[in-house]
Amino acid sequence: MANGKLWGGRFSNQSAAWIDEFGASISFDQEMAHEDLEGSIAHAQMLKETGIIPAEDTAKIITGLQDIQADLHNNQLEFKTSLEDIHMNIETILTAKIGPVAGKLHTARSRNDQVATDLHLYLKNRLPEVIAVIHDLQVVLVKKAAVNVETIIPGYTHLQHAQPISYAHYLLAYYEMLQRDIERFNFNIKHTDINPLGAAALAGTTFPIDRAYTTKLLGFETLYSNSLDAVSDRDFVLEFLSNASILMMHLSRFCEEIILWCSYEFGYLELDDSYSTGSSIMPQKKNPDMAELIRGKSGRIFGHLQSLLTTMKGIPLAYNKDMQEDKEGVFDTVKTLIPSLKIFTGMVETLKINQDKMLHATERDFSNATEFADYLASKGMPFRQAHGIVGELVLEGIQSHKTLQEIPFSKLKQISPLIEKDIYDKLTSKQAVSRRNSFGGTGFEQVKKQIDLAAKKLNINL
Amino acid sequence: MANGKLWGGRFSNQSAAWIDEFGASISFDQEMAHEDLEGSIAHAQMLKETGIIPAEDTAKIITGLQDIQADLHNNQLEFKTSLEDIHMNIETILTAKIGPVAGKLHTARSRNDQVATDLHLYLKNRLPEVIAVIHDLQVVLVKKAAVNVETIIPGYTHLQHAQPISYAHYLLAYYEMLQRDIERFNFNIKHTDINPLGAAALAGTTFPIDRAYTTKLLGFETLYSNSLDAVSDRDFVLEFLSNASILMMHLSRFCEEIILWCSYEFGYLELDDSYSTGSSIMPQKKNPDMAELIRGKSGRIFGHLQSLLTTMKGIPLAYNKDMQEDKEGVFDTVKTLIPSLKIFTGMVETLKINQDKMLHATERDFSNATEFADYLASKGMPFRQAHGIVGELVLEGIQSHKTLQEIPFSKLKQISPLIEKDIYDKLTSKQAVSRRNSFGGTGFEQVKKQIDLAAKKLNINL
Amino acid sequence: MANGKLWGGRFSNQSAAWIDEFGASISFDQEMAHEDLEGSIAHAQMLKETGIIPAEDTAKIITGLQDIQADLHNNQLEFKTSLEDIHMNIETILTAKIGPVAGKLHTARSRNDQVATDLHLYLKNRLPEVIAVIHDLQVVLVKKAAVNVETIIPGYTHLQHAQPISYAHYLLAYYEMLQRDIERFNFNIKHTDINPLGAAALAGTTFPIDRAYTTKLLGFETLYSNSLDAVSDRDFVLEFLSNASILMMHLSRFCEEIILWCSYEFGYLELDDSYSTGSSIMPQKKNPDMAELIRGKSGRIFGHLQSLLTTMKGIPLAYNKDMQEDKEGVFDTVKTLIPSLKIFTGMVETLKINQDKMLHATERDFSNATEFADYLASKGMPFRQAHGIVGELVLEGIQSHKTLQEIPFSKLKQISPLIEKDIYDKLTSKQAVSRRNSFGGTGFEQVKKQIDLAAKKLNINL
Amino acid sequence: MANGKLWGGRFSNQSAAWIDEFGASISFDQEMAHEDLEGSIAHAQMLKETGIIPAEDTAKIITGLQDIQADLHNNQLEFKTSLEDIHMNIETILTAKIGPVAGKLHTARSRNDQVATDLHLYLKNRLPEVIAVIHDLQVVLVKKAAVNVETIIPGYTHLQHAQPISYAHYLLAYYEMLQRDIERFNFNIKHTDINPLGAAALAGTTFPIDRAYTTKLLGFETLYSNSLDAVSDRDFVLEFLSNASILMMHLSRFCEEIILWCSYEFGYLELDDSYSTGSSIMPQKKNPDMAELIRGKSGRIFGHLQSLLTTMKGIPLAYNKDMQEDKEGVFDTVKTLIPSLKIFTGMVETLKINQDKMLHATERDFSNATEFADYLASKGMPFRQAHGIVGELVLEGIQSHKTLQEIPFSKLKQISPLIEKDIYDKLTSKQAVSRRNSFGGTGFEQVKKQIDLAAKKLNINL
Repeated sequence: MANGKLWGGRFSNQSAAWIDEFGASISFDQEMAHEDLEGSIAHAQMLKETGIIPAEDTAKIITGLQDIQADLHNNQLEFKTSLEDIHMNIETILTAKIGPVAGKLHTARSRNDQVATDLHLYLKNRLPEVIAVIHDLQVVLVKKAAVNVETIIPGYTHLQHAQPISYAHYLLAYYEMLQRDIERFNFNIKHTDINPLGAAALAGTTFPIDRAYTTKLLGFETLYSNSLDAVSDRDFVLEFLSNASILMMHLSRFCEEIILWCSYEFGYLELDDSYSTGSSIMPQKKNPDMAELIRGKSGRIFGHLQSLLTTMKGIPLAYNKDMQEDKEGVFDTVKTLIPSLKIFTGMVETLKINQDKMLHATERDFSNATEFADYLASKGMPFRQAHGIVGELVLEGIQSHKTLQEIPFSKLKQISPLIEKDIYDKLTSKQAVSRRNSFGGTGFEQVKKQIDLAAKKLNINL
Repeated sequence: MANGKLWGGRFSNQSAAWIDEFGASISFDQEMAHEDLEGSIAHAQMLKETGIIPAEDTAKIITGLQDIQADLHNNQLEFKTSLEDIHMNIETILTAKIGPVAGKLHTARSRNDQVATDLHLYLKNRLPEVIAVIHDLQVVLVKKAAVNVETIIPGYTHLQHAQPISYAHYLLAYYEMLQRDIERFNFNIKHTDINPLGAAALAGTTFPIDRAYTTKLLGFETLYSNSLDAVSDRDFVLEFLSNASILMMHLSRFCEEIILWCSYEFGYLELDDSYSTGSSIMPQKKNPDMAELIRGKSGRIFGHLQSLLTTMKGIPLAYNKDMQEDKEGVFDTVKTLIPSLKIFTGMVETLKINQDKMLHATERDFSNATEFADYLASKGMPFRQAHGIVGELVLEGIQSHKTLQEIPFSKLKQISPLIEKDIYDKLTSKQAVSRRNSFGGTGFEQVKKQIDLAAKKLNINL
Repeated sequence: MANGKLWGGRFSNQSAAWIDEFGASISFDQEMAHEDLEGSIAHAQMLKETGIIPAEDTAKIITGLQDIQADLHNNQLEFKTSLEDIHMNIETILTAKIGPVAGKLHTARSRNDQVATDLHLYLKNRLPEVIAVIHDLQVVLVKKAAVNVETIIPGYTHLQHAQPISYAHYLLAYYEMLQRDIERFNFNIKHTDINPLGAAALAGTTFPIDRAYTTKLLGFETLYSNSLDAVSDRDFVLEFLSNASILMMHLSRFCEEIILWCSYEFGYLELDDSYSTGSSIMPQKKNPDMAELIRGKSGRIFGHLQSLLTTMKGIPLAYNKDMQEDKEGVFDTVKTLIPSLKIFTGMVETLKINQDKMLHATERDFSNATEFADYLASKGMPFRQAHGIVGELVLEGIQSHKTLQEIPFSKLKQISPLIEKDIYDKLTSKQAVSRRNSFGGTGFEQVKKQIDLAAKKLNINL
Repeated sequence: MANGKLWGGRFSNQSAAWIDEFGASISFDQEMAHEDLEGSIAHAQMLKETGIIPAEDTAKIITGLQDIQADLHNNQLEFKTSLEDIHMNIETILTAKIGPVAGKLHTARSRNDQVATDLHLYLKNRLPEVIAVIHDLQVVLVKKAAVNVETIIPGYTHLQHAQPISYAHYLLAYYEMLQRDIERFNFNIKHTDINPLGAAALAGTTFPIDRAYTTKLLGFETLYSNSLDAVSDRDFVLEFLSNASILMMHLSRFCEEIILWCSYEFGYLELDDSYSTGSSIMPQKKNPDMAELIRGKSGRIFGHLQSLLTTMKGIPLAYNKDMQEDKEGVFDTVKTLIPSLKIFTGMVETLKINQDKMLHATERDFSNATEFADYLASKGMPFRQAHGIVGELVLEGIQSHKTLQEIPFSKLKQISPLIEKDIYDKLTSKQAVSRRNSFGGTGFEQVKKQIDLAAKKLNINL
């Protein structure tokens, strides 16, 4: 092995160290050291079980690997860039521990199926964690909703006041989005929980391996049916990055609202100090940093998705070195998602809402105009005509600084004889919210019903 | 209505025509005219059923809408940019047909839930089409595989000959990828097949609507539980674009191989003339245009995904005009995916393979080196040592222009006494393929087994 | 030509119409019909000038092409999908007009250099248009700035009030961004204004063409030095898409602010009716649709950039059919940028600002806290210590509902003996703004100076 | 400072450590420690020069900062996550060294302009490095071209043999692309080499700072004219990421060709061992890993571009915490670009080309068909007719396994009486190449001319 590499038999020249470093993945794939060892132990057990390697050899190998697991646990492993990747590093450490018999571990296996196995295991282990933190956020949302059914806030479209809504209803909208996120990550498990080990380089192996056995040992649901596919497939990673992007998009919308509502002008929310920071120059500042940062990090995750799609584009089967670029994005996404969700959970749990200001806003803003038009429509006027009449009333109101409920009855009667005095009652925010009682609407009864359903689904008592 | 718009009651100034045009969506959302009419008819039926609007009015409305359906069918509808979108265009046409009673159709509905309904219906209708064309391609792949089990081709990693494989095995790898694509689009149906109608602008409505009834009429599986979510959710579209991106990535890899294999240097495939074009200047050219174009179009679809993620990033609830940007990308994706898959089906069905050239390539290329190493390992030599020895043999072979099977036995014996004469048999491509008989491997038996499983799943006879 | 295509000599089978349609570009590349004819006329003139084709033939060709130009001008050209692209369509129309001599036009030329020439000409013609509309927006910004030097608005960081600033200063920040946009598009011209004509398929031609002559005729600044590069290069398109993305990002930030400032809660701006729309259900709504739409369209343009980068990734030299995907994104970008900028110009020109509300906001919000800290620092207290003291004053103020200027002098004196009565003067918004007179700061003098510089650069009188 | 942060005056609660960590940037912005110190020293000098801070104080500050520079140089600095970012870390270290006078350094400065200054300095320092390594690659390309003018290789379009070309011509195409890359990075300097220091938080400062002086001290070409723009602008970073994306796209195309040409089937190139790696399972493998990895990394860089565009989309002025996401992508891009280019330089310098195989390929492949058509066109036949005739000859040749030059003269004469015996001479690859002598063409003379021009521009002797 002229160049000192484990694969170096046919090579005569040696690369410069900085070139090796550029090609090496050990700086990041050590993140999967745990999974790599787990995979190797299962492989060794299978080699023993099938008699491919004598039991005395596999015994040494497995003990050696368990030793390394202990070292890893105690932070005593030292990796070398010159050994390229986590697989070669561990094999080298193993050789140092148990001698040349370590070389038998790589029988009937290639780094191609090995790295695929590691990555499947890595993500398989993380997906339930991600789902659990989403669930925690859902719990907080539903609990907060339960105590805010009758808290009234402006509902917006185009960032204009549209119609007053229940704050609980607003929180439940995010509950619903997160529910879809969980469903997506759950589906993601299906394509992650597949064992590629045994695909070898790309074509399977001539050794009488037992893939069902390693599948069972590693706790995989099933195994790949095609060895080429097993080593080439990164769909499960792309699904994860796509799901993460959609989740971050949801959070970024929530962030935007938190940032807006914490502004001086809105003033509807106050963040707990733990989720804000100050300014080095302006002593009065209390910045919603966490919300901004998470909003900003949506770009980061979208970028990871785009990166891997681009990297995979147009490369032929089976493994190509391009695919080494599949890992860092996933690791970083995991490290972004989990704290983002945890921070959200804490942020929502601790935030104070200014109920008076919110309610007041809905009473000065013409957001009861739909009520008025609906009133006319319910008396038989075609909705379009009703919409037109109320539009003109609003224009007049804006010009004369009067809300709809401040326009005298005589004036209203002139506009349409259909109008009766009960109109004033209909125009209060509370009425406007409570009467939107169609299924899924913001009416208090509906909202309570949805809270109960959600609590049941989340298995919590309110 | 000073500005002539249906919503124009409170407006005093009018926009220039070109500004209207910039904001209008009718140039593309007419793609959903069919769905818009379907949604309106269901809404009208519900208004009648619940008594919100008198039966005589809804009768006129429904007849009018059915008239418009007929006109649409006969290409007799004319849309106007000044009417902004498909909803306002159809309402205006309806008014022209049946008079002001048309204005009652918009009772208890907003364009926000209407456009969401249209888009859900649109995609709900297209997803089974997409799945069907993927299925058709799978059928062709499996049929081709069935007659090519023993066709041997070079298997590649890093575009270097790795190990010889069965051509059928290669085709089945794409069958597997497409299977996951189908699973993803099927999952996509879950989040598409939800009815938003009745969410109104964002908060539900005060009218006693029956959302379950429209859900049934429109054939939706279920309905949204939160009105804010109903009008703000574009997850189902993002899922579609993400799934489409992954599918296009798969096709782009297949395209890359078709392009490579059709080159003068590879010469393994010849495309049927129907899937190639010539050059305006070079008379000899036969270009794999379709494969190149589909590979190129992967960028297009990735771009649509990124566009919508970016558009949705950071916008507050509920509807914002930004979201009008959600449609063109979906329409274009549907129009790209379906023909791309159909072309693939025809392309694979008609392509000729040069079996001799492929087989020959596997016999001159050292791709049987793993066989040799495995041979030594199976005799008890640690795999790493075996790998090193064979690596040196290859280097020597390259320098002396000899394949492994051309090295004389005496020489081999010198290298290791473990080697017997049966080594030469192991080194043939056919042996190399057939002996990789681990589950999912390229061994002929394994491949046949996978073909049978696939045929059963696809419900075809071979 | 068995298959009826101009390149069909060696082909025996024919494609189905829908396959042709998928591969055809005529549906979009007719956008460059004008440029295609311009390029062909120049090519024909060169063929004549160099004697490659007899003058009598080129005379017929040129007259024929000019005829087609007239037809194009009068909307009388009809293009056929079966003829693939704009080049083949025009050549076929030419043949119909002047007979087989039309076939001589394609001497010493390929579609590869022809389409590259068309695209270079197309963008070369559009770039000055784009720059001109940016310039128009700059003019409006500077004019608005000139009459708003002393209009005080809250300056934000983290969407929290930071320090009061001049509205003119804010407008000038966008002037600066747009200035860089112009510089980028100007630089973009450099790599667009290069003539690829004469590169032929990829290698140049054996005919004694005169590329300098067509370069001059077409008004190009220079010509490509390498024929492979000439037909493969799409850098100029990527530069355009990247510049457009950055510009759209600038506009999206401006949009965000317009949307925020038009909200009920901010209430700082009112859009002219021409740049807003209403709601079909809520009569009171006045939505900042144009701002939302342009913000949303930033995603669209980012998508185009990503698409083309992905499409170009990893394709070998020279022309590949993938590259046909280069056009639609550019055309759409041009059609998005120009109206977006024009709408902005009108929107900014006509928007009304609520000066009182803005000023008032700066006087109730502790955004003068930096003033206070600076005051202490200027008297010799280390800034960090001053920052800490004022931070505590703010906390106290919030709790007791008092602004800094409302805290009695005796109390201030207790806090630090450095404080004198002149502090109250420093704490007014007007003082706070006017005193930030460092170069580029928001101080009125500085702002006036920058307005003058900008006016001079834009060559306008204020 | 209840929460122990330098900005914590108004805060009463404290964040958990893991939340701080999520928000902290010190883990990556320590990359700019050098620039941060440089900026602080310049700021301190200015504070002294303007008399804002007494000379004795600034003397201590500057000495302290220089001490820290030395510590940094000797890897003796220790950063703490709890101190958030590089600025606060250094300020804290400074305070530990020189006491509370350190607090005066932050006079008339904010972290907003400080971080912008650091990032401008960082990129300003790296751009010339990037340009230099591009230049080095150009030098190698031109030197390799100079000794390969008459090396003939197949020229491709659609990965089909199109026309034979000079290998030097091919290399020069990349020289041209890299030249545009250099021009883009040079332009990028324009928008990087601007000093934001003194913009303070967003509005400038009331202290009589001298921004021209820090501009001069820091070696900036100019300074920002608008303080809001100074702290909000990330255009220079987006330009860098866009330029890097285009460059990586160029390299990815080159990589694709290296990978193809190193394949068994092409066999045109052999990489030096230093730029290849082996397989852990297949002893014969020699993988073009570096080329694959760089091709794969194009996705990574495109992702960084998309990330930052998305992050910046729709955020209002001035600084928002989202913008903290601007750095990691840039740092990673620098660390990807520079080694990628260096590896390319070494890879191209050391690669062996198989001239015989390349030439032979051009003689068996009909890539001289254009020659034949041009021959007929030059004798007066319309090119379209000539193209058709040769197309049919090719079809016949393929069917009868004869190249064009193997078709007997009598047969040719039948096809057209215009054909003379000199046609055979025209059909050789060497003639075909040498006769494409139009400007920028692959003809040997043209190529030599371009090499000379390039050498002159690069200032090298050949």
